[in-house]
Amino acid sequence: MTLSETELLAKQGNDEAFERLVSSDPVLVDVRPAIDVVPGMTATTILTSGAPLPWERYHNGQRTAVIGGALFEGLAQTPEEADEKIQAGAITVGACHDYGCIGSLAGIYTASMPVFVVENRTMGNRAFCNFYEGESRKRLNYGVYDDDVRRGLMFIQEVIAPVIAEAVRRAEDGVPLRPLMRRAIHQGDELHSRNTAATLLFTRELFPHLLDVAEDMPTEVSRTLAFLKESDYFFLRLSMAAGKATADAAHGIEGSSIVTAMSFSCRELSIRVSGLGDEWLRGPLPDVEAKLFEGFTKDDVVWMGGESSINETVGLGGFVQAAAFPLQAYQGGSAEEMIRMNLEMYEITVGEHPEFRIPYFSYRGAPTGIDIFKVVEKGITPVIDAGVAGKDGGQIGAGVVRPPMGCFHAAADAYRRRYGSAVADAPVADGSI
Amino acid sequence: MTLSETELLAKQGNDEAFERLVSSDPVLVDVRPAIDVVPGMTATTILTSGAPLPWERYHNGQRTAVIGGALFEGLAQTPEEADEKIQAGAITVGACHDYGCIGSLAGIYTASMPVFVVENRTMGNRAFCNFYEGESRKRLNYGVYDDDVRRGLMFIQEVIAPVIAEAVRRAEDGVPLRPLMRRAIHQGDELHSRNTAATLLFTRELFPHLLDVAEDMPTEVSRTLAFLKESDYFFLRLSMAAGKATADAAHGIEGSSIVTAMSFSCRELSIRVSGLGDEWLRGPLPDVEAKLFEGFTKDDVVWMGGESSINETVGLGGFVQAAAFPLQAYQGGSAEEMIRMNLEMYEITVGEHPEFRIPYFSYRGAPTGIDIFKVVEKGITPVIDAGVAGKDGGQIGAGVVRPPMGCFHAAADAYRRRYGSAVADAPVADGSI
Repeated sequence: MTLSETELLAKQGNDEAFERLVSSDPVLVDVRPAIDVVPGMTATTILTSGAPLPWERYHNGQRTAVIGGALFEGLAQTPEEADEKIQAGAITVGACHDYGCIGSLAGIYTASMPVFVVENRTMGNRAFCNFYEGESRKRLNYGVYDDDVRRGLMFIQEVIAPVIAEAVRRAEDGVPLRPLMRRAIHQGDELHSRNTAATLLFTRELFPHLLDVAEDMPTEVSRTLAFLKESDYFFLRLSMAAGKATADAAHGIEGSSIVTAMSFSCRELSIRVSGLGDEWLRGPLPDVEAKLFEGFTKDDVVWMGGESSINETVGLGGFVQAAAFPLQAYQGGSAEEMIRMNLEMYEITVGEHPEFRIPYFSYRGAPTGIDIFKVVEKGITPVIDAGVAGKDGGQIGAGVVRPPMGCFHAAADAYRRRYGSAVADAPVADGSI
Repeated sequence: MTLSETELLAKQGNDEAFERLVSSDPVLVDVRPAIDVVPGMTATTILTSGAPLPWERYHNGQRTAVIGGALFEGLAQTPEEADEKIQAGAITVGACHDYGCIGSLAGIYTASMPVFVVENRTMGNRAFCNFYEGESRKRLNYGVYDDDVRRGLMFIQEVIAPVIAEAVRRAEDGVPLRPLMRRAIHQGDELHSRNTAATLLFTRELFPHLLDVAEDMPTEVSRTLAFLKESDYFFLRLSMAAGKATADAAHGIEGSSIVTAMSFSCRELSIRVSGLGDEWLRGPLPDVEAKLFEGFTKDDVVWMGGESSINETVGLGGFVQAAAFPLQAYQGGSAEEMIRMNLEMYEITVGEHPEFRIPYFSYRGAPTGIDIFKVVEKGITPVIDAGVAGKDGGQIGAGVVRPPMGCFHAAADAYRRRYGSAVADAPVADGSI
């Protein structure tokens, strides 16, 4: 088969993007307040999940969360004042992705919040993610701000982050995350809705350094160990920062039709595509197949944003569900269904990850590199594991999300406008390894 | 259906034995030299795996291992002297099981060796297991004794065991093992040939205490952490001690046809049955379906004992293989085969474990309580995961063992002699919960 010029460009672009996705080497190198390390961050910036929207379009928990961020940071004394200042431009609301950050649920970042600094050693780029707030269902990133939430955030800021920062600085050359993630997938994690083993592995990695840190701050180290022990979700923010550092490295490659971000706001699901620049391709929000906590019904479910789907973008989460059967207890479903969905993901990706491997599939590599044209042609959308937020704020469950085709059609149209229509009619990528 | 008197006795016995198996609560309470805690242990006792044999019957690696134990303990200066002293009765060779101990492979215990002391809180009985020697393929329990093996044993004795002993003593009320085992099964372990997650979970449990211990012995704590990190197998000895404490609690119940030990020597596979007293029911050795390390062939495989099958006896190992697909990389096979074998185990057991649950089977409880009559009637023998020893000593692989029917027929015959024959013709147990 002879490839047309456009097809060749697409193939080369996708091969390159895939190679970057699977060769990325994210390393935790530091923990710092956002203002000190996030490019473009200011004292009056608040970051939130999703492609940017005009302020008046933010509603429900996501709006509450942004306002909560302003209150937490001391940028306003009341929600009304925060609202006015945002409208007046005295407080800037930005999109996490535009700042190298990645938002969990509503994804609120303010200047003083500590962030993980993850460096992609292969490409040299950096990404950031802030900290898991703890096991309470009511958290700022789930659209709640009250005294308990504030205390939780301050505990992270004053105890957990400083201890981990000290430990990471004692680790010679940082803490490589890829080996931990590779192992965690062999221990029942898919690294989106289950991070139990990864959190353990990360804790063990820190422990020799914590012994050292404990000489100066024994109480803080003990409290950090206790927090890590009860926070099975802790590593999610590290896998997200790793995912962002990885996906960004694969972004901006001429001709590539591979997805480099999937980002939810309270209004839309938007994606970015490697060969389509920084444009967000927007579409409607999906339904959720969720297992809800006792006392909640489907009517309670609301969208308030979420960018942890960066993990699916790099071959984790729903793309390695068959490595994480224990997840059934948390988000429902069955092993059979997880296997079926996981296998489907090979249909819409360009290759298999050489390091992230699924034991149940005889250690087959994770399906990696979502191709918008495969999605459109097969009518199969990505499987995304997700926490579920409630209309009154807080987490009310967890489940699986299958996005509607909207954003993928938008992306295919944009691609055709930019590169010509031939591509859509032929197999674009053959990056399997 | 009306049950005969014998059938009723069998049913009641098996119900009671099953209840004890699943309600046992093994807790690590101490680490001490064997001589200090193992009842009946003397300065000149060496324990080894399997039903007792006359000394001249011990051959290959198991004989080498017993003699190595004598040399290690300083009971003889040369192998010849050790041999003579054993023949003369100046050194006693005993069976691990008879001393509350449980042998990994050749299972060598000498007086000075540190052992885990595990107490079954439900029943009050205790069991002991010595320490994993480390990742080297050449180990005393695999029939090798040389300077490297000696150094490894001394390292355990002088560094690892004292640190863990100190940490355990600081744990208020010991370290409960059951919750760690329950979690490990949700993290890819079957707790026989894969103990990766359990070792991690155990390490984390010790962390807070190690912080404390490090104040007095910082170097030793660091070395212990490094050892734990590289020793994914470390927890096996804890799961074995827990298994022994559990199985012993279910032993000695009138009428019960449930297996309470499966024990390999270099000559035989022998079992004990709850209702048949301390008699060993002996049969031939099985073949091994093994994945051998590079450079070895089936001709290199030898039997030199093994009692880690105590874990299968209490519903772990081969009985939860479908929770441990990552095991394929170590001992071969396929996910399909593991599932098939695991399901078979429900055919020969009397119930399902309420805490040890298999995510792949929608969290169905592990098949627990092997009934000799189910084994004989169905012609299905237990699935046992096992390390494989080589004829020149050392580990040469790992695999799955399906015992021949010999010891089960011997047990059924003994049962009929004791309780009458009616039992064997009818379903004996219905302990499913």
